[in-house]
Amino acid sequence: MDISTINWNDIEWEHVREGVSRKAFSGEGATVSINRLMPGHEPRPHDHHYEQIVYILAGQIDFHIEDSVTRLGAGGLLVVPPNARHWGVVVGDEPVLNLDVFTPKRAEYAS
Amino acid sequence: MDISTINWNDIEWEHVREGVSRKAFSGEGATVSINRLMPGHEPRPHDHHYEQIVYILAGQIDFHIEDSVTRLGAGGLLVVPPNARHWGVVVGDEPVLNLDVFTPKRAEYAS
Repeated sequence: MDISTINWNDIEWEHVREGVSRKAFSGEGATVSINRLMPGHEPRPHDHHYEQIVYILAGQIDFHIEDSVTRLGAGGLLVVPPNARHWGVVVGDEPVLNLDVFTPKRAEYAS
Repeated sequence: MDISTINWNDIEWEHVREGVSRKAFSGEGATVSINRLMPGHEPRPHDHHYEQIVYILAGQIDFHIEDSVTRLGAGGLLVVPPNARHWGVVVGDEPVLNLDVFTPKRAEYAS
């Protein structure tokens, strides 16, 4: 049986754009990514056909989905429905670490 | 738009069995759960049709999948394929916190 196993620490941060870095890990059914958002990064509203479960690991973020905004801190969970326009704005001086679960798997992300 | 949002801290630990507690949160495509495994808990091999991505948040665990065993610490990631028999054995004195991502969503878990 081919077991896929790795440590997050062994995955390099991928530079996504100024102030945004990402690590990703996929199964067949889902892709899990950790994103690091720096204070002052340029928010970039976007949408995709994936459902996205957001779990904030550290920091504070104002998370926008369409016309709603929710302030999330560590432990905060939220579901972005498929095709909903969304973006985050870091609150305060602490970088935000958020874990995203995409379904179906997000093939364009590494591993 | 109905946005599903909550804080993990607001979700009660569900007593699963002696030494095992769980919190769960679901979207439509996936269920995310956090499990707390105490040292000395009784391992219980099981299988299910869900794919399960395992992400160890704290502690150390020997994770068995069929005939293979992988020692995982904080940051460890692993995919349990659908229908593969699996179980974990806590290593050392520290409780294990692990985050599981199930696809498709696991309807029998509370949201």
